[in-house]
Amino acid sequence: MTITGEMLIGARSHRGSDGEFRAVDPATGAELEPAFGGGGVAEVERACALAWAAFDAFRETGLEARAAFLETIAANILDLGDALILRAMAESGLPRPRLEGERGRTVGQLRLFAQTVREGGWLEARIDPAQPERKPLPRPDVRQRHIPLGPVAVFGASNFPLAFSVAGGDTASALAAGCPVVVKGHSAHPGTSELVGRAIQAAVASCGLPEGVFSLLFGVGNPIGTALVTDPRIKAVGFTGSRGGGLALMAAAARRPEPIPVYAEMSSINPVFLMPAALAARAEALGKGFVASLTMGAGQFCTNPGILLGIDGPDLDRFVAVAVEALGGSAASTMLTPAIRAAYDSGVARLSGSAAVATLARGLACSGPNQAQAALFGTTADAFLADPALQDEVFGAASLLIRCPDAAAMRTVAERLEGQLTVTVQMEPADGDAVAALLPTLERKAGRILANGWPTGVEVCHAMVHGGPFPATSDSRTTSVGTLAIRRFLRPVCYQDIPAALLPEALRDGNPLDLWRRIDGVPGQE
Amino acid sequence: MTITGEMLIGARSHRGSDGEFRAVDPATGAELEPAFGGGGVAEVERACALAWAAFDAFRETGLEARAAFLETIAANILDLGDALILRAMAESGLPRPRLEGERGRTVGQLRLFAQTVREGGWLEARIDPAQPERKPLPRPDVRQRHIPLGPVAVFGASNFPLAFSVAGGDTASALAAGCPVVVKGHSAHPGTSELVGRAIQAAVASCGLPEGVFSLLFGVGNPIGTALVTDPRIKAVGFTGSRGGGLALMAAAARRPEPIPVYAEMSSINPVFLMPAALAARAEALGKGFVASLTMGAGQFCTNPGILLGIDGPDLDRFVAVAVEALGGSAASTMLTPAIRAAYDSGVARLSGSAAVATLARGLACSGPNQAQAALFGTTADAFLADPALQDEVFGAASLLIRCPDAAAMRTVAERLEGQLTVTVQMEPADGDAVAALLPTLERKAGRILANGWPTGVEVCHAMVHGGPFPATSDSRTTSVGTLAIRRFLRPVCYQDIPAALLPEALRDGNPLDLWRRIDGVPGQE
Repeated sequence: MTITGEMLIGARSHRGSDGEFRAVDPATGAELEPAFGGGGVAEVERACALAWAAFDAFRETGLEARAAFLETIAANILDLGDALILRAMAESGLPRPRLEGERGRTVGQLRLFAQTVREGGWLEARIDPAQPERKPLPRPDVRQRHIPLGPVAVFGASNFPLAFSVAGGDTASALAAGCPVVVKGHSAHPGTSELVGRAIQAAVASCGLPEGVFSLLFGVGNPIGTALVTDPRIKAVGFTGSRGGGLALMAAAARRPEPIPVYAEMSSINPVFLMPAALAARAEALGKGFVASLTMGAGQFCTNPGILLGIDGPDLDRFVAVAVEALGGSAASTMLTPAIRAAYDSGVARLSGSAAVATLARGLACSGPNQAQAALFGTTADAFLADPALQDEVFGAASLLIRCPDAAAMRTVAERLEGQLTVTVQMEPADGDAVAALLPTLERKAGRILANGWPTGVEVCHAMVHGGPFPATSDSRTTSVGTLAIRRFLRPVCYQDIPAALLPEALRDGNPLDLWRRIDGVPGQE
Repeated sequence: MTITGEMLIGARSHRGSDGEFRAVDPATGAELEPAFGGGGVAEVERACALAWAAFDAFRETGLEARAAFLETIAANILDLGDALILRAMAESGLPRPRLEGERGRTVGQLRLFAQTVREGGWLEARIDPAQPERKPLPRPDVRQRHIPLGPVAVFGASNFPLAFSVAGGDTASALAAGCPVVVKGHSAHPGTSELVGRAIQAAVASCGLPEGVFSLLFGVGNPIGTALVTDPRIKAVGFTGSRGGGLALMAAAARRPEPIPVYAEMSSINPVFLMPAALAARAEALGKGFVASLTMGAGQFCTNPGILLGIDGPDLDRFVAVAVEALGGSAASTMLTPAIRAAYDSGVARLSGSAAVATLARGLACSGPNQAQAALFGTTADAFLADPALQDEVFGAASLLIRCPDAAAMRTVAERLEGQLTVTVQMEPADGDAVAALLPTLERKAGRILANGWPTGVEVCHAMVHGGPFPATSDSRTTSVGTLAIRRFLRPVCYQDIPAALLPEALRDGNPLDLWRRIDGVPGQE
């Protein structure tokens, strides 16, 4: 499949005329062909009009048809073959195994949502049958299901050119919910985006769905994104990216005549608590494991461990010694874009320039453009508590160790943390009481709590939460990974005394869809 | 129980010194004793500090203990006996049977949430067991439950001094979720609020809960509300009231360093579609039924039918003739407050002064202070489409009939409606196709769709949705009535490879709480 540099608006390809841009291979600094034409207000208008026109039909597709659509997208992505991997490697600087793994995850995620759609639990069907004899007033027949919100704007993320981009988790869950999707592709990987977009576009056509179910726009600068979020036909927004970007989208959405939900996954420093018995038992292994997690993928994960906490003493010193050695020997690695690399450098400079922060180790020197050296810094609990800016995320392989005088100080620091995607506890059974005392705080701070693992790597499953209190996300009530993500794009509707023939299938007597439903509040498959 | 005019801050009573106010009996205009002292920033600070201190303990109360707490509140409210009814009558102008019914609903709602808490489905426990042998990477053990957001600010509504006030649906669902509640009592019924507040305060004490689980504040003007919504320890807001009030709270919440969800139920004109066969079969009964629904409780319901649509012709004329006669004979009735009565009068004046609107009928003249005359207005579909202001809610017994030339015009008007709490269709089997054509639009517009009933009267049950797209509410993804309302105050947290001893009970192997859980995505009681 040839990459043309066009946008995909419904069934058509369309070359934008609002500026031109090319992807850059971060490993070489070379511009990649072809040039992409940026879209503007006219393209947003057309994509949103098509999405709106498609909405009522798409949201009432049968469960099987919608599941088959998601599976067709997955198959089409696999059919792109090595061309997709090669283009994604050139546009991201990420190595082949990582991108092959990410493709597997992306396809697996689409298939998991297909299963979820088929099972139908997300409809949350509830039936409270009429009680015509009830006194003093009869009870009406009341039935509830969930319906999709409407067309969704999805912003592709830079750091997962497949799994959090055009056919990533936001798109998969919105389509699963029955929402048409308009993607604003990330300018760092437009070729990858176009290839995946064409895979979705072809699935829309071969499944006989209305063309407006999917569009892919490109644009130079912020205006196209603002136009998309403020279009009255867009009813929700999915975003993974910087705090500044997420806050701007939240503000734009709140200013609309009709405000809409924004699901922005923004920033997280993913604290790791090194408990005393764990340090005593395996300081060296922890030091190595930590550096491996920190430097994986040049540290470009939302769940990268950006803060470590431990109680001062010889065991922590052993951990630090190993971590310093491992990190000192870690190769510089290519970051996704020059802008991300520049932001990393400035974040590292901010920390290394702070009087309260010591530089413990740097990775090996850079040997090519857009490479970054890993960095490990150290500070004290008091210094950390005194300077809120030490909580600012440095996106990349940089982490800050906070030496705490005792367990109480560790809890104090925990209580002062901002909202996080994850918190990790490294512990042994002897740490049980101390962890139990920490847990209530950790639950209030994060969407996911791990023991004895590393936060990088997010399992796509039913129980996953990739979310958390602000500023980790804009909406702690949800997750952007895992099957619960479908709920972000749904709302309940109830039907009171509606004649049987007009009821949606999910709510009919006899349970034709074989759903789990609540009848008078009691769950069952009736 | 004596009404003292004090606020309830945790276990203590506290007389505010920031202004003084008294309730007014709207039926007489007389001020009622005692005087209430308004609170300010200091009282907000103390109530929020106590709520925060109570949060971790309260959220981990067992299901049975929390359910018993809700049932104790219900029992304590009943124990207030006739004193509560008499005070609520004096403060609201509402008649005894209405308030006795509302008390029954309030108590029933608390008990329904107690059942809901016990059943535990709201925890939404999910377990994806580890797969240590999985290739290429082992799968961790991932478990998810929902936990409460944190302390919730609840604003009492004027129009349901019991069911949407101090111990109303917002408070009941927030407490059920495990959130401490700080209520800002409505100044129209402070005595009723104090009585109910003391019932809750006593339940907190007798159930051995931390005192901060509940506080009740009063205040003159908006500053206390703003202080409450912007307090960093408040994590969500429940509000029922005007659009202006709701928008102000949304803006204040969005401006916080940490934005929080606001559940504001604001305005709805609850359109009623009079379908042709229904008009042909029962125009007269519909006319009478409509006026009864419109004038009930002086029209002071969020679900009052403020718009009617019908296709022009002799059947619609018959409906109008009966409605005009019934409404013309309807007694003026006392509104809740002088301000509400003044707003009603100005809304009616706006409609009657519009060149595009005809006054079809007015109710009987007023015979006392704060009374309002019902009003029925008429206009055309074209005029309605030309003037968006005709959609503005007139809170009270006023309604606007829109004569449509045909079914297509009816659908056009439907498509232009703002978001609603309810839409109603009066239909016969012969209207089935026309209603089927309308339904997709109605689903997009409202939280509840009724056939052959009237929207006033909201059943408190499992399947109810009292919510809807903006501006009916600030968040269409939820309901403020019915058991699903608990979800507003919850967020998911997941536990990865957490040792068994540290897992919350809801997620332990062996299912000690006997919950419905999803294991590997499959629902069951294991």
